[in-house]
Amino acid sequence: MDISTGIKKLNDSEQLMSVFSHAMSVMHYDGATAAPEMSYIDRSKSLGLLSTYSYDILLNKENKENVRFLMDNRDLLSSSDKKRVELLQEKIDKIEGIPLEEYAEYRALISESEAVWKDSKAKNDFKSFMPYIDKIIDVKKKFAAYFDPDKHPYDFYLNEYERGSDRDFFDNFFETIKARLVPLISEISDCPAPDISFLQGNFPIYKQRRLSEVLMEFLNIDSSRCVLGETEHPFTAHLSRNDCRVTTHYYEDDFTSSFYSVIHECGHALYDMGIKEEYYNTVLGTGTSMGIHESQSRFYENIVGRSLPFCEYILPHLANLFPQFEKITPKEFYKAVNVAEPSLIRIRADELTYSMHILIRYELEKMLFENEISAVDLPELWNNKYREYLGIDVPNDSVGVLQDTHWGGGMFGYFPSYSLGSAYSAQIFHYLNKDLDFSALVSSGDIKPVYEWLRDRIYIFGSEKDPDEIIRICCNEEFNPNYYIDYLENKFRALYNI
Amino acid sequence: MDISTGIKKLNDSEQLMSVFSHAMSVMHYDGATAAPEMSYIDRSKSLGLLSTYSYDILLNKENKENVRFLMDNRDLLSSSDKKRVELLQEKIDKIEGIPLEEYAEYRALISESEAVWKDSKAKNDFKSFMPYIDKIIDVKKKFAAYFDPDKHPYDFYLNEYERGSDRDFFDNFFETIKARLVPLISEISDCPAPDISFLQGNFPIYKQRRLSEVLMEFLNIDSSRCVLGETEHPFTAHLSRNDCRVTTHYYEDDFTSSFYSVIHECGHALYDMGIKEEYYNTVLGTGTSMGIHESQSRFYENIVGRSLPFCEYILPHLANLFPQFEKITPKEFYKAVNVAEPSLIRIRADELTYSMHILIRYELEKMLFENEISAVDLPELWNNKYREYLGIDVPNDSVGVLQDTHWGGGMFGYFPSYSLGSAYSAQIFHYLNKDLDFSALVSSGDIKPVYEWLRDRIYIFGSEKDPDEIIRICCNEEFNPNYYIDYLENKFRALYNI
Repeated sequence: MDISTGIKKLNDSEQLMSVFSHAMSVMHYDGATAAPEMSYIDRSKSLGLLSTYSYDILLNKENKENVRFLMDNRDLLSSSDKKRVELLQEKIDKIEGIPLEEYAEYRALISESEAVWKDSKAKNDFKSFMPYIDKIIDVKKKFAAYFDPDKHPYDFYLNEYERGSDRDFFDNFFETIKARLVPLISEISDCPAPDISFLQGNFPIYKQRRLSEVLMEFLNIDSSRCVLGETEHPFTAHLSRNDCRVTTHYYEDDFTSSFYSVIHECGHALYDMGIKEEYYNTVLGTGTSMGIHESQSRFYENIVGRSLPFCEYILPHLANLFPQFEKITPKEFYKAVNVAEPSLIRIRADELTYSMHILIRYELEKMLFENEISAVDLPELWNNKYREYLGIDVPNDSVGVLQDTHWGGGMFGYFPSYSLGSAYSAQIFHYLNKDLDFSALVSSGDIKPVYEWLRDRIYIFGSEKDPDEIIRICCNEEFNPNYYIDYLENKFRALYNI
Repeated sequence: MDISTGIKKLNDSEQLMSVFSHAMSVMHYDGATAAPEMSYIDRSKSLGLLSTYSYDILLNKENKENVRFLMDNRDLLSSSDKKRVELLQEKIDKIEGIPLEEYAEYRALISESEAVWKDSKAKNDFKSFMPYIDKIIDVKKKFAAYFDPDKHPYDFYLNEYERGSDRDFFDNFFETIKARLVPLISEISDCPAPDISFLQGNFPIYKQRRLSEVLMEFLNIDSSRCVLGETEHPFTAHLSRNDCRVTTHYYEDDFTSSFYSVIHECGHALYDMGIKEEYYNTVLGTGTSMGIHESQSRFYENIVGRSLPFCEYILPHLANLFPQFEKITPKEFYKAVNVAEPSLIRIRADELTYSMHILIRYELEKMLFENEISAVDLPELWNNKYREYLGIDVPNDSVGVLQDTHWGGGMFGYFPSYSLGSAYSAQIFHYLNKDLDFSALVSSGDIKPVYEWLRDRIYIFGSEKDPDEIIRICCNEEFNPNYYIDYLENKFRALYNI
């Protein structure tokens, strides 16, 4: 076989897999946004069967041999084809690395654990969930060892969500955060709180829907390729080349929830839709990592959406829909959407304190994987760290150690990428701001140049470049967490006059 | 092989096919209700590929041999399995009866013809569409001959949409309609028109959405298994066992459009959701024919929804949402939603005149298939018939012979089932009304007994019983179109005091 025949075969099998993933993503999206409750029964059956077909395309002997052949000849391939083949080979190895039976047992454990977690959280009963954490970590350690017995299992999982990262990388990152952020948060906690009373009121959903349209237009979302749906827990899904969906959830008594979640999700969508045309329907046609993806959603949500120039731009639109904003100044609005206050729940945390929630989870996950602690120690440690880093008391485990779904779902090593996204975005912003007059563009409402700057350095590459390469392309230097803290210091010291 | 192994195999292959049809229907539904415009490109590619997989499950050698084996032993099967096997064998024979290449040519012709029709309609240019009609009919005649050279091709296609029907059946049906309905319509055309001014106004869509909920509750739609979506041209889709979708289109200046289309589509949904549990995911798990399906949508839309008791029930709900109805009496509302007036456009026709539109199309299709005329003769004949039967002049072909999409899409023999549905529903209603106090049930808002009557005689059977058997089960006699005209005579003579 020659290389070009091999690439042709690869294209065919990736095209075929993309059809199944297309169908499955539409079913997932429909299930989360439109489908009636009871539809889940047949949907989960159908999804199971379709994924069997999809795996068979990847794992059948001919495809595996072809990928192997290309892998052995990868130095003869173009750089993007080389990356494709490497990623596919890794995918195959990962699936085949775990004995089928053990993987099935693990899926059953997770499925049980998720149900138990839900129940434990509702009943504030950590004890019944506790054994699952230990069991899951045992299995995860065993699985990590199948792939690379010499690598520390937590390093393995950190790298799963953020290619190229490990404990050293994140230790350095979180040490910087801890050293500089804990004192800043404590200082700000002592400041008087700004007025946010004008954010309260009744905001009819049909008006909030109109507001979402205004936001999506501002963000240059191409409405012929991306639409907004409604769901319980907002997410973004890229279903096929010309088909991206962002979702939101409207609350009639709080428009800011959907307001910022639409901006956040649109950041994900812009990334997904900006990838080089020919990478779609291949393994390169997705964002390169959790962290880089999150850097884009948080860039738009916080660096754009919680900036003073944006408040100047959006306020007339808001006042147009909700007359209560007619007398509010951009500065007042800016202050209100940037209230910083230590709180219990990660997903409701503000821009300043968010990473402290992640820091706490990182430290605990690391200790679990390093056998320093086991699940039984979690609640006390959790509560101590919330007191130490955020200065607040955790009244019970439901709003403490039981609040997140991740651990019950087996997702260890995932949390750190959230904070990393914010840190990436601050560093990227620093360099973008050297090339463009960011404030003028945002306040004028024309942020196309911002989008293009990001697209040409991040989006177009899809998964072709690793996260560290993306940072180098954007910043011409390595990742440096100090940009993030500098950004927070500047912003919040000015906001709170300290 | 023994029978029970054969049935097990059949179950497996039908289950597998149902997964593909599930995925494809979700993609179709999503495409029509939620997807962004440009998504069609990848969707049509993916649907094409998934249907190849689905056909392969039906047409692979092993499945065909199994169906053949069961077919040869069908007298040993339960009556429902026997029907399943017969329907599947028929499906296989029909697909394999046409040489693949000719079928591909036909699909290409239709695809071109649909585009040309759209353009011709927009430009009022029948001449450019004309040759396609003749070409399509030639191909359809050839295809019909592949299956049964001794059967007249128009009989073949009538039977395709309504199992058991042919020209004799429909000649008898339409002769009755023509003889009794043409004079009635002419008489009513001379009557003064009732007041419908109070149906005009502005009806905000969020209020119409609430009205749809009221209607679906009245119709006993199980909201955990059926939800309402929004689309351009309303339809109903049954996606899987516990998943049915009705759709509507809201117009801000006319609430009656969505109002009656929701009731109509819910009629389809009730049928689809009432089928015996074990028939789903088999070839028996759909309505038995176009005509019987339409009988249910039209029963709910017209016999229930345009009845005086229903007007009594719904008016307080309407007035609650739209204060302009506070002073309207049920009788006034009843008259306004039953205005009968000859008109040009089939899909906007009222209950009384609707079947005249179908009669005209039936007569023309028959002449085309009997070689009495060809496409060139259509416009003149069309216009003459509209003058003769409905007393109106057709100003141009766009609102005349070019108005419907069906012929350009190769759907000959389809129209008659629309009228047949109305006629079925009148005859079924006659017998239902003997068993139940229909008026009292409807005006009280509790029509569960009506639903159950229909479910036990029609819905549960799915495709197990043919249309004529369904009519016998409901009415204990053969189909008789006079019930339909009797119903229209009684209703409209009373409405117009003639």
